[in-house]
Order: sequence, then structure tokens, then C-alpha cells
Amino acid sequence: MIRVAFVGLGAMGLPMASNLLRKGFTVTGFDLSANALNALEDAGGKRAGSASEAATEADALILMVVNAAQAEAVLFEGGALETLRENGVVVLMATCPPAAVEAIEERVRRAGRRLIDAPVSGGVAGAKAATLTIMAAGPRDTFEVVKPVFDAMGDKVFHVGERPGQGAMVKTVNQLLCGVHIAVVAEAFALASKVGVDLNILLQIMSGSAASSWMLKDRGPRMLQSAPEVTSAVDIFVKDLGIVLDAGRDTKAALPLAAAAHQMFLAASGRGDGQEDDSQVIRSYLALNGIK
Amino acid sequence: MIRVAFVGLGAMGLPMASNLLRKGFTVTGFDLSANALNALEDAGGKRAGSASEAATEADALILMVVNAAQAEAVLFEGGALETLRENGVVVLMATCPPAAVEAIEERVRRAGRRLIDAPVSGGVAGAKAATLTIMAAGPRDTFEVVKPVFDAMGDKVFHVGERPGQGAMVKTVNQLLCGVHIAVVAEAFALASKVGVDLNILLQIMSGSAASSWMLKDRGPRMLQSAPEVTSAVDIFVKDLGIVLDAGRDTKAALPLAAAAHQMFLAASGRGDGQEDDSQVIRSYLALNGIK
Repeated sequence: MIRVAFVGLGAMGLPMASNLLRKGFTVTGFDLSANALNALEDAGGKRAGSASEAATEADALILMVVNAAQAEAVLFEGGALETLRENGVVVLMATCPPAAVEAIEERVRRAGRRLIDAPVSGGVAGAKAATLTIMAAGPRDTFEVVKPVFDAMGDKVFHVGERPGQGAMVKTVNQLLCGVHIAVVAEAFALASKVGVDLNILLQIMSGSAASSWMLKDRGPRMLQSAPEVTSAVDIFVKDLGIVLDAGRDTKAALPLAAAAHQMFLAASGRGDGQEDDSQVIRSYLALNGIK
Repeated sequence: MIRVAFVGLGAMGLPMASNLLRKGFTVTGFDLSANALNALEDAGGKRAGSASEAATEADALILMVVNAAQAEAVLFEGGALETLRENGVVVLMATCPPAAVEAIEERVRRAGRRLIDAPVSGGVAGAKAATLTIMAAGPRDTFEVVKPVFDAMGDKVFHVGERPGQGAMVKTVNQLLCGVHIAVVAEAFALASKVGVDLNILLQIMSGSAASSWMLKDRGPRMLQSAPEVTSAVDIFVKDLGIVLDAGRDTKAALPLAAAAHQMFLAASGRGDGQEDDSQVIRSYLALNGIK
């Protein structure tokens, strides 16, 4: 059984590491939060004083940090890449732009280590229940080395391609669909409200028709509230659709729907609604079309 | 039990009229097709020689014709509005632009009759199984008069508003969501294919995630075929998103996502793919982004 180093023990990382321990893996973890390290120890893991200490003697180094910049800091500035054993596998599970993953992979490879790109979806609930969707990319033989680790954390483990960055692209495409699906519900509601259609009945009808989407059913009800609970903020989609459009620029792909949707989230953030629930992108449509 | 005249006995209309007969309604029908009239008689209905003859003595005149122009021709040129009894109810079930419905309703009202605007969704299968979704608008008391008729043809009957045209708007909004949902899947596939992600695996992942939509699951698989079966043509969405944008113009609502999606269907039709399956809007993205 491979020895795992785990850096980034936040809301997602801690339950993921706990599931590894539950399945019998040896896990040495590092996080800037002492509370997170205490919790890891309670779950049976070992604490390290730094990322490079955690990576020492490990076969796989899992990075569940916030973004690509943090991953780079851990690997290249914090020294974890050097302490990871020769030919060890860096498992980059944070959500990063595809181009950043490609750049990181190149540096990891030049240092004689390997990288698997493996973003996740399923949220904190999926992390706790070990039901994450894991979208892994990298050479098949490297993927096979860490597959037992993935199977301990998720129940929908996909090998989406041979090149690191392809996993990040699948996650990027996922966010493209999610962001446009939210914005188009707002666009539909704005049009219907122009002629006084009852939006609650409209939502009920659309939820049961070919017009339905996961986002329609989830965000639709909150779109009809003036100050709903924040489950995910407008600024998350400002960032994520930004990553989508960056991926479009890097690959030279025109993405007219994603670009238009991004503008609506951006405007919402610009009006001061960045920390509101992302369903409130509807306020951009209301403002634009002069609907009270 | 109210007496029903039924004009437009096509793929949808005939099974709808048959369901009315099965529930004990008296139905007198008209269609330009002799075969359709024979089939109505076989189902227990009466045939008429014209729309105005069918409407004579009827309490409700159902129009299941192709578009608003045909509805106008039946009512105002064919004379059916005059033969329908005073205060009788015109039930406009064809898919029409909201503004056209409002114009028709005004003329019907001035002639001393009433109008309920009641487009449907659910397709031929729903028409046969009496499981249509019916989106009816008009004064509540008028709606109640014809509700037993609706209940005989559908199982999801909604009163969406007091003003005729609001039903058409709900149907319009439905098509806005459907059209954008198809186009955004094509946009997502185009981006992913730029980096060689396996699109079959991508579709499988997206179908089980928050990125899912009814259209993703239905059109996604056909989008990955080069010449799929045609279940609904590109030109249907050229028309339907055209109705959406007309509704936006009439109500002065900016609809950036619907407008961008319409361009992609329009370009597909312009390249000669109008009669292809609407999933083939992906060819617009492939052409635009130079993807083989």
C-alpha cells in the first residue's frame, strides 16, 4: 500500500484524508491550521511541520490546496517536490486552470517526479461520504499507481486522458455548463416577468420539462427569493467562468455563451453582489432590463 | 359536458381529439386531410366539411394548427369565429408568439367570444398518452370552463396567468432554455475537444454532475455522432429561438444568451444543415473554431 502525503486539510481535504486513513493508508499531512492537524491526528494520521516534511518518503503527494499558485508554492518554494521520492507521484486535486496544470507538470517531470491531474466534484458532502467524482488525467500507468487512493475518496473515478491538464479541462467544462445554466435561468425568468407570468408556476413547469437542468432545480427556487441563503457566491462564478474563458484563450476557442454569461456574473459582482448567492445573477438581468 | 370543435388533426391533434372522445366529449373535427377526418370518425368523432361548420354549435373551439397565421386564417377568414356560439371559448393550443396571441385575443373578444391561450409540451407521445403539459392563460372563470377538456388531454395542467399570451410566453421561455441548453453542450464539447479529452467520458461525467440538463442527456449522445437520427431539426430552433427573440423585442428585454445561441443555429441552417438533427448545431462550433 502506497504511503500518502496530504497537503491542504480544509473543508474538503480533511474528510478526504480521513477516508484514506479509514481504508488503511498511511497518511502524513500538512496544513497551516493547527486545528486541521489536530483533527488529522485524531483520525489516525501523522502531522508534519511543513509540506516538505510531509512529502518525505511518500509515494504520492496529494495537493488539495486552494488554487494553482498555492500548489506551485508548496512544490517549488516549499521544497515538497524535492523531498518526494524519485519517480513519486504528485496528485494535483485542486481546481486549477488547464494551462497552469500543464506548466506545473512540466516542472515536476523535469525534477524526475510524475504528476496526475485530478480535480474533483461533489463538494464537502461527497468528500465526507467518499462519493466524489474524480476526473484524472496523466499516463495510464501513473494513473494505475494512485487509483487505489482515488477509490478510497470517490466512487466515480474517471481516467479522462493521458495528458495532465485534461482533468482540469473536464472540470473547466463542467463549470462552463454550470455557469451558463444558472445565467440562462435568470434570463428566462427576466423575460417571463416582463409579461407578469407567475414565476413559481413557471419554475414548476420547467422543472418537469425538457427545459430542465440540475441548476434550474437547485438555483431556480433561490432566484425567486430576494435575499436567499448563500450556498455558493457570485464571485465563485466570476472566477470559474474566468478560468473557462482563459482556457478558451489558451486553446484559441471562441465561447460565445460562456463569455456572455460571465459578463452577467461580473456585473453582479461590480454592483456589490459578489458575496451574494450565485442565483442572484438574476439581479443583473433585472437591472439591465429595468425590471423591479 | 361541453361540445368541442377541433381544428387541426395532425400528429398531435388527432390523438388529443381521440382522448376527448374517450372521456365522453362530443367532438366535431376539421382538417384538410381526408385521412385525418376518417381517423377521427373511426375514433367516434364527427367530421365537418370546414372549420366554420365544425365550430357551429360548439362551446369550445380547439385550434391545434401549425402556427399563428393558420389560427388567424381559421378564425377570421374561414369564418369559424362567427359560427362559434356567442361567448364560446377559442382554445388556442398551437405554439404561437406571445404578441400574436394577444392580437388574436383582441379580435376574438371584440367579436363577443373568449380566448384561452394554451400551448402544450410533451410531444406526440404525451398527446397519445394524455400526459401533455398544458400552459393555459386567460381569465380564471374562462379557464375553469375548459379545464375538463384540458384534463382529458394532459396530466400537468397549469393556469399560468390571467392574460392570453402568458401561456405562449411560458412556452417561449421553455424554448429559450431548451435552445441555449443544446448550444452550450456543443460549446462545452468544442472546448474539451481542443485538448483531446475523450468526449464520451466527458458526457458520462457531466450527465451525473451539477452540469447536467435534460438536453445534455438527450442531445449529448447524438452530438457525438456524425450523422444521427433526426428527432427535431436545426430549423425548428432557428424558428423557436426566433420567436424567443421576437418576444424579447416586443417586451424590450435583452436576452444575450438566447441571441448568441440563435446565431449558432442560424449559421448551421445557413451552411445547409437546417434539416439535420438539432444536436448538429455542434457543427457551427467546429466550423467556427476550426476543429476537425
